[in-house]
Amino acid sequence: MSDLIKSAAELLGQLRKSKPLVHSITNYVTVNDCANIILAIGASPVMADDIEEAADITAISSALVLNIGTLNKRTVESMLAAGKRANELGIPVVFDPVGAGASKLRNETTQTILSEVKVSVIRGNMSELCFVAGLGSNTKGVDAADEDISSGNARKIASIAANRYNCTAAVTGAIDIITDGKRIAAVSNGHRLLSDVTGTGCMTTALVGAFCGAGNDTFVAAAAGIAAMGIAGEIAYEKAGESGTGSFHIAIIDAVSRLDEKILRERARLNEI
Amino acid sequence: MSDLIKSAAELLGQLRKSKPLVHSITNYVTVNDCANIILAIGASPVMADDIEEAADITAISSALVLNIGTLNKRTVESMLAAGKRANELGIPVVFDPVGAGASKLRNETTQTILSEVKVSVIRGNMSELCFVAGLGSNTKGVDAADEDISSGNARKIASIAANRYNCTAAVTGAIDIITDGKRIAAVSNGHRLLSDVTGTGCMTTALVGAFCGAGNDTFVAAAAGIAAMGIAGEIAYEKAGESGTGSFHIAIIDAVSRLDEKILRERARLNEI
Amino acid sequence: MSDLIKSAAELLGQLRKSKPLVHSITNYVTVNDCANIILAIGASPVMADDIEEAADITAISSALVLNIGTLNKRTVESMLAAGKRANELGIPVVFDPVGAGASKLRNETTQTILSEVKVSVIRGNMSELCFVAGLGSNTKGVDAADEDISSGNARKIASIAANRYNCTAAVTGAIDIITDGKRIAAVSNGHRLLSDVTGTGCMTTALVGAFCGAGNDTFVAAAAGIAAMGIAGEIAYEKAGESGTGSFHIAIIDAVSRLDEKILRERARLNEI
Repeated sequence: MSDLIKSAAELLGQLRKSKPLVHSITNYVTVNDCANIILAIGASPVMADDIEEAADITAISSALVLNIGTLNKRTVESMLAAGKRANELGIPVVFDPVGAGASKLRNETTQTILSEVKVSVIRGNMSELCFVAGLGSNTKGVDAADEDISSGNARKIASIAANRYNCTAAVTGAIDIITDGKRIAAVSNGHRLLSDVTGTGCMTTALVGAFCGAGNDTFVAAAAGIAAMGIAGEIAYEKAGESGTGSFHIAIIDAVSRLDEKILRERARLNEI
Repeated sequence: MSDLIKSAAELLGQLRKSKPLVHSITNYVTVNDCANIILAIGASPVMADDIEEAADITAISSALVLNIGTLNKRTVESMLAAGKRANELGIPVVFDPVGAGASKLRNETTQTILSEVKVSVIRGNMSELCFVAGLGSNTKGVDAADEDISSGNARKIASIAANRYNCTAAVTGAIDIITDGKRIAAVSNGHRLLSDVTGTGCMTTALVGAFCGAGNDTFVAAAAGIAAMGIAGEIAYEKAGESGTGSFHIAIIDAVSRLDEKILRERARLNEI
Repeated sequence: MSDLIKSAAELLGQLRKSKPLVHSITNYVTVNDCANIILAIGASPVMADDIEEAADITAISSALVLNIGTLNKRTVESMLAAGKRANELGIPVVFDPVGAGASKLRNETTQTILSEVKVSVIRGNMSELCFVAGLGSNTKGVDAADEDISSGNARKIASIAANRYNCTAAVTGAIDIITDGKRIAAVSNGHRLLSDVTGTGCMTTALVGAFCGAGNDTFVAAAAGIAAMGIAGEIAYEKAGESGTGSFHIAIIDAVSRLDEKILRERARLNEI
């Protein structure tokens, strides 16, 4: 078993003990799943996106998740205010640049957030991280295209993004790559059916936020959150994959709620590379 | 069997016959569950939060539910307009002060709603009702802390809130307390796992709204709605608790949709105290 | 087997091959289900409602779905901008006038959209289509009343709406009627329990959007989407109807995700009349 798996399992134990409050300013498509998966992993969710309270709610939280899936002018301002407060207080910020590359608004917002807020972790698919890394993108809406998932470029892209923003960057796909610019890890957990349920990317980011709220090493936290989602996808497929994507969706939450250190240690395919 | 259980069961019968339209201005995290649980109990949901129609939609409804889970300036104005119209027309207003105590905005909004709208029922957890009762609060975001749930102060807090606003007040936790200032009831249905699914509080409030739309006694309506949720939690745990919180979540809706007067009479642990 | 069933099955095959991107500006109550059902049928969902990107996202999509379930001033402007861009680019627009007839705002918005945007398909229940057809309405919120469902007037109403707006109009109920003004079809698939889950209408519209993104004949696309939902309702009832409406809800998504040309051919009760 890799040291990284041990660290991830320990962090899960800490998370379940400390029940960190995770503040998310996120999209309305997948917000219910994000709240439920944060509860399932053992943390406590709060969603608050009004400018008059966003920073105050961040201040009582252990992590902040920013997700631009259904961004609008009102909530982007709240994201910036919450992000700046998080920075002042040393609270980790996890950023999911959903659909970066797909519209001018998403591109500009991604750049604004990354220039005004110091983020701890950026997680996205290949085309989103390509945009973050400054390499353009070729996106089909907000879902990862198959070519992206199988691409071997994830390692390069993640490293550029991590160095550019001095943070942990994670590209998720068939193989997930996580790097903080010094260490680099690969996760090969997961299941193809995860891309047939909306919000599995958002939920992964939410899990990363929960792990970030439980410890100080954002590289380990990102790896743990991504591995947790991959393992949950595998278990969910075993339980419910044949029934259809509705049952599979529910089984993902089930699996996360039942995930413990032992299961994580046994099933994680997570290694520094 | 207590008289209150008989009244609650009768009200369920009325509800399923009259299918009241319930207008909710609520948060986007749990809104789908709230709509589905309103349908499951036999009522009809409508969600409309624009200032230009909120009051009109209230006017054709049998109950109005206000929930500040993801409040913003735009929807708070609509809540006030809808609440005032409900007052004019004698339509019951059920208020869920989600996260009251957690931010200045939530505190001020709670106070504004309670001063400008005559509410029929206030339902919240201990720290939210503490704030409503004017006793400050000690909240960890929007979820009830364990200490809150086991506290014996619920009865006192609920009574203060009920008298202060001349309404029915309900504090939900391990034991739920409901009072209209004269009568006081306790519900000991429920399951601990309910706190591992987001929105079980919001759904309880939605059920209270549905029961309020079916009868005139808001004390009975609040008790019935809260007991219905508690019973559903128990049945859901029996059916799906071991599978995980995703399946448990779905089983809650299942149980509410299959709840009838007989089940309510047999399982309700609901008494005036 | 009717020619229309053959055409619908072929279109399903094309849809699963071409995976069209479907842009929805829709309500926050049922948006997660809409995204998941678009994925389940084999298309790719994107939800973007900010005025600064709505038209840009439409421009990269194969279909646009407009749903006024929780309309507000901000999103209606985005609907108009997206709709006009869709018209410029020849992208089909599917319109769901949720609750038309229930408030002045919904009535005016419905008229504005229909006068400023050339829609390809309008789908709604009887009272919504009555309003669209200019015959007034008698609505109880946003859900179809039983009288509406059993009404024999659907055919007349749909024809008036189709001719008035030179589009395909569909009235869904116990029997669904679809017409483009020349051809007229009836679908008798479905299950009564579908009205006990919120958003089955919205999901039907989303499926119509997905089929519109896969072919050029909007009459066939509407018939295919509506039949797909009806068949899914039947299968879901067989699998989970006895468990309750929560399980039934999930089983709808399951059934759509497993729908193939063979099942559609065998189960569709879809005929030109």
